[in-house]
Amino acid sequence: MQTYALRIEYDGTPFHGWQRQESHVSVQGAIEAALAKLGEPDATVQGAGRTDAGVHATGQVAHVALQKPWSPFRLSEALNYHLRPAPVAILAAVEVGEEFHARFDAVERRYLYRILSRRAPLALERQRLWRMNYRLDTKAMRAAAAHLVGKHDFTTFRSSICQAKSPVKTLDEVSVTELETEYGWETQLRFRARSFLHNQVRSLTGTLERVGAGAWPPDQVASALAAKDRAACGPVCPPDGLYLTDVLYPSNPFAPASAH
Amino acid sequence: MQTYALRIEYDGTPFHGWQRQESHVSVQGAIEAALAKLGEPDATVQGAGRTDAGVHATGQVAHVALQKPWSPFRLSEALNYHLRPAPVAILAAVEVGEEFHARFDAVERRYLYRILSRRAPLALERQRLWRMNYRLDTKAMRAAAAHLVGKHDFTTFRSSICQAKSPVKTLDEVSVTELETEYGWETQLRFRARSFLHNQVRSLTGTLERVGAGAWPPDQVASALAAKDRAACGPVCPPDGLYLTDVLYPSNPFAPASAH
Repeated sequence: MQTYALRIEYDGTPFHGWQRQESHVSVQGAIEAALAKLGEPDATVQGAGRTDAGVHATGQVAHVALQKPWSPFRLSEALNYHLRPAPVAILAAVEVGEEFHARFDAVERRYLYRILSRRAPLALERQRLWRMNYRLDTKAMRAAAAHLVGKHDFTTFRSSICQAKSPVKTLDEVSVTELETEYGWETQLRFRARSFLHNQVRSLTGTLERVGAGAWPPDQVASALAAKDRAACGPVCPPDGLYLTDVLYPSNPFAPASAH
Repeated sequence: MQTYALRIEYDGTPFHGWQRQESHVSVQGAIEAALAKLGEPDATVQGAGRTDAGVHATGQVAHVALQKPWSPFRLSEALNYHLRPAPVAILAAVEVGEEFHARFDAVERRYLYRILSRRAPLALERQRLWRMNYRLDTKAMRAAAAHLVGKHDFTTFRSSICQAKSPVKTLDEVSVTELETEYGWETQLRFRARSFLHNQVRSLTGTLERVGAGAWPPDQVASALAAKDRAACGPVCPPDGLYLTDVLYPSNPFAPASAH
């Protein structure tokens, strides 16, 4: 057996999330179906981030152990061929040691959430951003975000079906930036942490949006966090604007020296 | 009757182009169908640029004369409501004088062509760019593009079905820039002219791509232009990467003073 790490991009729109499910289309299932066509019907792909239905990725990482040895370049080409027409692309494949685990070895995950402020519906960027009619107060959002950075009990911002043992997580970054694009004013939220609770990014984004809209004062985010109560959370935002952009490891398996 | 100018965004993928056709889905047809639902079954929408099948727009302009008076804001909202789920969005509507003609009054049209250099197929930006495996030599493309700017007989770069009376056009800009995006190296070509021949932008882009790939020396573009012969043209590039981004008028109908 040889283990490979894969760097993966996908449009989450048609999928019921990353994780394989009975009778539902998943990204993991699509990649495993492509592997079956390569003569690896028993291969199990382990992803670093189990993204929800509709959530996109520009930098998901997964690993898989295969019976047959492949040149990493040929593996990525063959997978991309058999993945068609599913909107999933293998950006890179590399050989890694059999001890490599995409999920358990990850030391940082990065997410981006994109919000577009404009009145008209989206024609070209549909299901790529969360559109709203009003512009957000990014200064207030940044003040609120400052309460979230660091090690906290994030019970307030955790899905009721979250399976993590502890609600305590350390958020290394919550940044809020605004840029003018050809489509309108875009607000980008960036999150970095070793790991996240289920629905944490969307719960935090939905809450920060309330601050940006002027419905919540920034300090209400601090009291919501302190409440450790799901009922204190703002509305969970839609998946359309969320992207898993990167997963980091103690040693980057995709560094140029080992990449193909 | 009151005439309105519309600024329109669309994803060209599902359409057989801008222009209404019997038994084919078109952008013009989609907007006229939405107008029919507003009680204007006889309205004819005139677009500034008759984009081909698969070509996108972020700034198409059209005009339409309506029987019933509408507040421009309500008109755009109602059209967007009835356009769903077609990927067409009315970005702005304004009242204009009955003499306004979106096509004949335009003094400049702007197109953008986007090329992405990366090996992996596109998952998130599918049908938004022309993907190729190799990176382009943008310096050589700029040298070639310099031959095209100005007033020339563009017979070489004109579709055989082009209906323009004269093949002589003045290209005010052909620029080539490269930027690194999260998806790979993107080459952007920008074209500005009062008007274009049928397939001119895609003929020029396909030819400049040959230069960027190293298959044509830059001077071959000058001799292809001088040949005034369709056979001297490079391959016409696919529509996926092409965007009509703007249409200019002697007096901007969408200027803030008149916009709603």
